[in-house]
Amino acid sequence: MPTILGQNQYGKAENRVVKITRDGDTHHIKDLNVSVALSGDLDEVHYSGSNAHVLPTDTTKNTVFAFAKEHGIDSAEDFGIALARHFVDSCAPIGRARIRVEEYAWERIETSDANSKFIGADEVKHSFVRNGQETRTAQITYDGTEFEVLSGLKDLTVMNSTASEFWGYIKDRYTTLQEDYDRILATSVSSWWRHNWTGDEQRPPQWEKSYAQAKKHMLHAFAETYSLSLQQTLYQMGSRVINARSEIDEIRFSMPNKHHFRVDLSYCGVENEAKDGAVYYAADRPYGLIEATVLRDGCEPRIPVDMTNL
Amino acid sequence: MPTILGQNQYGKAENRVVKITRDGDTHHIKDLNVSVALSGDLDEVHYSGSNAHVLPTDTTKNTVFAFAKEHGIDSAEDFGIALARHFVDSCAPIGRARIRVEEYAWERIETSDANSKFIGADEVKHSFVRNGQETRTAQITYDGTEFEVLSGLKDLTVMNSTASEFWGYIKDRYTTLQEDYDRILATSVSSWWRHNWTGDEQRPPQWEKSYAQAKKHMLHAFAETYSLSLQQTLYQMGSRVINARSEIDEIRFSMPNKHHFRVDLSYCGVENEAKDGAVYYAADRPYGLIEATVLRDGCEPRIPVDMTNL
Amino acid sequence: MPTILGQNQYGKAENRVVKITRDGDTHHIKDLNVSVALSGDLDEVHYSGSNAHVLPTDTTKNTVFAFAKEHGIDSAEDFGIALARHFVDSCAPIGRARIRVEEYAWERIETSDANSKFIGADEVKHSFVRNGQETRTAQITYDGTEFEVLSGLKDLTVMNSTASEFWGYIKDRYTTLQEDYDRILATSVSSWWRHNWTGDEQRPPQWEKSYAQAKKHMLHAFAETYSLSLQQTLYQMGSRVINARSEIDEIRFSMPNKHHFRVDLSYCGVENEAKDGAVYYAADRPYGLIEATVLRDGCEPRIPVDMTNL
Amino acid sequence: MPTILGQNQYGKAENRVVKITRDGDTHHIKDLNVSVALSGDLDEVHYSGSNAHVLPTDTTKNTVFAFAKEHGIDSAEDFGIALARHFVDSCAPIGRARIRVEEYAWERIETSDANSKFIGADEVKHSFVRNGQETRTAQITYDGTEFEVLSGLKDLTVMNSTASEFWGYIKDRYTTLQEDYDRILATSVSSWWRHNWTGDEQRPPQWEKSYAQAKKHMLHAFAETYSLSLQQTLYQMGSRVINARSEIDEIRFSMPNKHHFRVDLSYCGVENEAKDGAVYYAADRPYGLIEATVLRDGCEPRIPVDMTNL
Repeated sequence: MPTILGQNQYGKAENRVVKITRDGDTHHIKDLNVSVALSGDLDEVHYSGSNAHVLPTDTTKNTVFAFAKEHGIDSAEDFGIALARHFVDSCAPIGRARIRVEEYAWERIETSDANSKFIGADEVKHSFVRNGQETRTAQITYDGTEFEVLSGLKDLTVMNSTASEFWGYIKDRYTTLQEDYDRILATSVSSWWRHNWTGDEQRPPQWEKSYAQAKKHMLHAFAETYSLSLQQTLYQMGSRVINARSEIDEIRFSMPNKHHFRVDLSYCGVENEAKDGAVYYAADRPYGLIEATVLRDGCEPRIPVDMTNL
Repeated sequence: MPTILGQNQYGKAENRVVKITRDGDTHHIKDLNVSVALSGDLDEVHYSGSNAHVLPTDTTKNTVFAFAKEHGIDSAEDFGIALARHFVDSCAPIGRARIRVEEYAWERIETSDANSKFIGADEVKHSFVRNGQETRTAQITYDGTEFEVLSGLKDLTVMNSTASEFWGYIKDRYTTLQEDYDRILATSVSSWWRHNWTGDEQRPPQWEKSYAQAKKHMLHAFAETYSLSLQQTLYQMGSRVINARSEIDEIRFSMPNKHHFRVDLSYCGVENEAKDGAVYYAADRPYGLIEATVLRDGCEPRIPVDMTNL
Repeated sequence: MPTILGQNQYGKAENRVVKITRDGDTHHIKDLNVSVALSGDLDEVHYSGSNAHVLPTDTTKNTVFAFAKEHGIDSAEDFGIALARHFVDSCAPIGRARIRVEEYAWERIETSDANSKFIGADEVKHSFVRNGQETRTAQITYDGTEFEVLSGLKDLTVMNSTASEFWGYIKDRYTTLQEDYDRILATSVSSWWRHNWTGDEQRPPQWEKSYAQAKKHMLHAFAETYSLSLQQTLYQMGSRVINARSEIDEIRFSMPNKHHFRVDLSYCGVENEAKDGAVYYAADRPYGLIEATVLRDGCEPRIPVDMTNL
Repeated sequence: MPTILGQNQYGKAENRVVKITRDGDTHHIKDLNVSVALSGDLDEVHYSGSNAHVLPTDTTKNTVFAFAKEHGIDSAEDFGIALARHFVDSCAPIGRARIRVEEYAWERIETSDANSKFIGADEVKHSFVRNGQETRTAQITYDGTEFEVLSGLKDLTVMNSTASEFWGYIKDRYTTLQEDYDRILATSVSSWWRHNWTGDEQRPPQWEKSYAQAKKHMLHAFAETYSLSLQQTLYQMGSRVINARSEIDEIRFSMPNKHHFRVDLSYCGVENEAKDGAVYYAADRPYGLIEATVLRDGCEPRIPVDMTNL
């Protein structure tokens, strides 16, 4: 046969699982989108169509829902670890499992203020509104020996309305851009970071707290960096997370430069200077795209470059 | 000619205008997507292609950006009123202007906690993170005599994890649905409501406050209604807004029933009862779709039925 | 009660139904997305939550799938007529049914060329590739007495690379646009047209042929009109359809002006004239948006203005 | 400094460039979306914010548009090769350029039939309708020494309405799926393939013909394979392309199993067997996802696994 099979994987993608936990009248939600990808001794299903080594994707879906009930969902990471371990440990042909998760956040609808008592309801503890700020992500990979846990987020849109400059760059025949000493810097952060936890012999991170802290440090570094380039801001964000969180060794960002162009209003004789509070046109395409990895010194990069590409 | 022209309108859609206001070091953002639609004495541009009565869509775009600077953006509604008035009053062939606005909310990045002082920044007042909870909308129409102001929102996703039942419905040959006495009720609210303000002889509503209050009442009614049908919940939401806000006479909702199906885990011998905290499958399509108008008694409906259709 | 219920409707939206018809080894596909909206004696479900008059949306879904099998799908229009009639005629509280359909086109994968006989397959008659040119639409409304049938399409993207001018328009303080005597005219056509068939006492149109012809005339008028404005082109398209198809009395278009801006390459000393074959920047937002109805003389407009709004 | 910079790249993404070529009255379109990513001696822009080594993303955008005019666009691959070579060869700090392209296909609007001569236009040679079947893609990487050219496509949606089975798989505690001997097999193909051309010392492929042939072989293999698993079909598709096209050494697919579930109509006493022409529910999520690489024997895999992940 003049062709051969290379890397391959399969599974059920985008299982939308919602778990409600009742603590008396107080309810809690976990709202996940879980994708399973399995690899192993799977040549025959490609070559001859024999499914003898195939755990059907439908079964992987059923497993996701059953695990949510049987084991609960403490965090996206815990849930992914349990699933990945199960597929590799219980199904002989499967040598490697990768679980990807998106998590959607909900916050409580507060009904306690005095004006809201039209109907007489007391405080309501089972009502939620979805918080669309960012989507939390996780990827757990297990090969029977070691785990790799990536956590991340996407669509976290941030803006500094000043404290950003851009100048001193290369000029060539195609240059038209003017240097700018007071511009808007806005981006929609996509990020993956890698934990140094790899298995049960180590104490695992507190996944929920680790996520909240990583996000907080990222936002603070964005806000507190006086920026000469989006690359500089990115590096500060990554460096801050790694310095503040000992459980994280590597972080990668994909950050589009969401251009806000100051509008030239000279057509109607109006000045539009940044210092006076300006009007901007928020452009869609094209956009600058800045991608980079930041590493704890001495650590190896393992987050794939193409994982964060737009 | 055996064909004639009917209703027509034109303009520049989706002008993405961002206005920064500087109050010392403290900045404020208004982030809008503004669409202009003009009607009037425009038969000839359709019949012969003569543009003699046409204010180009490019000019309507330039006007949006210039107005943001010259007049500022106190609210989406104020901005739309100023634009609609301008187009009708300043351009003879234009008899009617309709301005549609989407508004994106931003909140400040808080950097004041003690742990964040890596770089030495004090409190930062020009850094923002986009709050993706809902998109605010407005539509302002002016015909030279009267204004009509609709405010609204979309993509406000809410869930009650209990306090919802569905039973007692019609059964026929095609019925398979089981009655349910404890289900999840979730929806993504789209709504438009109409203010009774129509022109300068009346005192205008406080648009920002009115929006915040309408949204709050809508959320509270959702949370506080023990629901026997999504229609009942919808009516309570609309009724609450109109009863609480004298400036609003009419409100229309389009609310998809975002089905969360309790998973039957009998395949692996696991119970999954709502009362114990269940696992649900969040379905995409198909979905129930509930649409209705609620009116102050004695008022005429004016919000088009097809405006909120999905 | 100081609030009252206005117009309301409910049903199951976006039922993705695929029907395969086997004619020996030759298969045929109908691939639809069907949305049901029912109105009638439904006040109580809103006021008290009583579902006694409610045919559940789940049942309307089951009906869609059962009808596809029991009656087949000759055309989107025929299918919608059968469903609308069923809901109104068989369910007492339902006074009006509106069925909306999207249809996705498939074409056969041709395998008959000599080079393709690797495996020895003869001509294959059950293999299809989706043709993404446009999405066909239909809306059927029935109130127990009369039908209204709209047919339509969306996302039909067309371009004339010349034979388009724009000049002679109003200039004001905000004007910056230069007149153009050779521009690209591109749009993505959304359209609804209304048939004059209203019930069984008339011979119905041949729905499949009518659609194909309406689309053809629309495309030809776009191609053959030397355009002085997008409005003129739109009117020619509508007029052509109505003149050529006696079964159609009214047509409405929503046509974004998909701007292709000729790039000013003077920064590198390169000319970029239309007559020499130019380079253009295809812009996303903002865009001109042109909407209008064209009517057979003497007919009343019935297609809602807001039905085609973007 | 306890953190260091890892892999990084930057550039302008999604430049929407349209080139019209005029051959007398006959026009031709190339419609591309071009993304530039540059790497090199760029540590300082991350560490200190110095832009001394940065060619601004704005300049890379200007270069894309200028090259489209100065060099034309023979194919996406040729265009990407010219751009990648330019950035690396002309800008000292840039060591590697990666150009990604999406291409949108247009076909002519045919106006030659007798019925279309309403206005008197003869054959029109500048009118086009966009063909939405698939999006063509390309990725060109150049490091100053070697080129790597990937071509690809996405959103090519195909269906076999029979000749697909699925049985003989692993059963466990979570299995509920029934074996099926006559099912629909449908997928939306995403694929990247790698050419063995790496530089000017080799004769380059005819890129346009190579693409058309690769797509044709992929479609034929899909149609002609009697499928026992989607993996088997995928492997046949990849194998067919590599066997038929000597310029291609490697191909990777990401193929969602677009489930079409045969509806159980027993609720209304209706049979719905595949052999009689059945009704199916086309599901959105979750979906099976099958990904694999097929290689010419003896060749190394170079297409990143994460490049085709959904």
